[in-house]
Amino acid sequence: MPVVNIYMWEGRPIEVKKEIIKAVTKDIAEILGIDQSLVTVIVMDVPKESWGVGGIPGDELK
Amino acid sequence: MPVVNIYMWEGRPIEVKKEIIKAVTKDIAEILGIDQSLVTVIVMDVPKESWGVGGIPGDELK
Amino acid sequence: MPVVNIYMWEGRPIEVKKEIIKAVTKDIAEILGIDQSLVTVIVMDVPKESWGVGGIPGDELK
Amino acid sequence: MPVVNIYMWEGRPIEVKKEIIKAVTKDIAEILGIDQSLVTVIVMDVPKESWGVGGIPGDELK
Amino acid sequence: MPVVNIYMWEGRPIEVKKEIIKAVTKDIAEILGIDQSLVTVIVMDVPKESWGVGGIPGDELK
Amino acid sequence: MPVVNIYMWEGRPIEVKKEIIKAVTKDIAEILGIDQSLVTVIVMDVPKESWGVGGIPGDELK
Repeated sequence: MPVVNIYMWEGRPIEVKKEIIKAVTKDIAEILGIDQSLVTVIVMDVPKESWGVGGIPGDELK
Repeated sequence: MPVVNIYMWEGRPIEVKKEIIKAVTKDIAEILGIDQSLVTVIVMDVPKESWGVGGIPGDELK
Repeated sequence: MPVVNIYMWEGRPIEVKKEIIKAVTKDIAEILGIDQSLVTVIVMDVPKESWGVGGIPGDELK
Repeated sequence: MPVVNIYMWEGRPIEVKKEIIKAVTKDIAEILGIDQSLVTVIVMDVPKESWGVGGIPGDELK
Repeated sequence: MPVVNIYMWEGRPIEVKKEIIKAVTKDIAEILGIDQSLVTVIVMDVPKESWGVGGIPGDELK
Repeated sequence: MPVVNIYMWEGRPIEVKKEIIKAVTKDIAEILGIDQSLVTVIVMDVPKESWGVGGIPGDELK
């Protein structure tokens, strides 16, 4: 019954998010030997300016 | 001092979310024998297409 | 398909946690008008000394 | 490699969020004696009406 | 810079968790077209009795 | 009413965690101009082997 929360920068196309949901579900189900229907994946979009690495907000990185 | 994060599909009316906040707070306070003021509930809305069960995004289910 | 994360101080008996799981699941399913089987509740135990309110760790409160 | 999730009411200016990201990153890096680049901070904005304290939604608080 | 939190029942061998960390990191990096070093995965072990589906704690499930 | 979840490698002394709780609470309260009593900080300890950066578990880094 794993639950997966994926935090990433907003702005990715819906198709990319769905591809991630499918791949991560498949991996985890296979490795744990459980049915895919038991895996829940939730993608959380975060604005770049609300996300800091090393104290630098995403919209100011490089 | 429990903190509760509830992830659910976006699109529910505000009144429904408030009803959930009230009911969950009341239950937890009663069961733990603490004052309701110590319970925090945060509802996180997630778009259906960002939420997969069994690898199938919410907007493609059934 | 709501997913609920409940953070609370560790040390509560297992029966209390199960009571919370049952009550919160019932509440949310009823209010949303969905089947209880669609609700997942995860209780996370946190040591008091890892939990601060107003900067005061739980094991130093009152 | 600490990861910090900060949930707060939406509506704060971006500059305030960035100030928080910088201050929290600096604190944690200094206290742990690690490089700031290892600290990730994610600010999650939550609508007031989705956030309850004591069962009272944020938009109805005093 | 995605951050992934995976909640699952405790008791899995460390090697299984590491396999999941590797697979999920690889998937996400490939799909997003970013370097694997930018992906953080955190596995959270949860006791079965603290995890309910449909209100039934994990240690009582079939 | 901010709620802060800090995920970090387990093994830090309690005093270090408390120092982090105090510093982060003070920063956020000052920057938001709110009372410290409104800030909750929860530190989550994660075993190094359950934490991967770039797919490499923490206990294999370096």
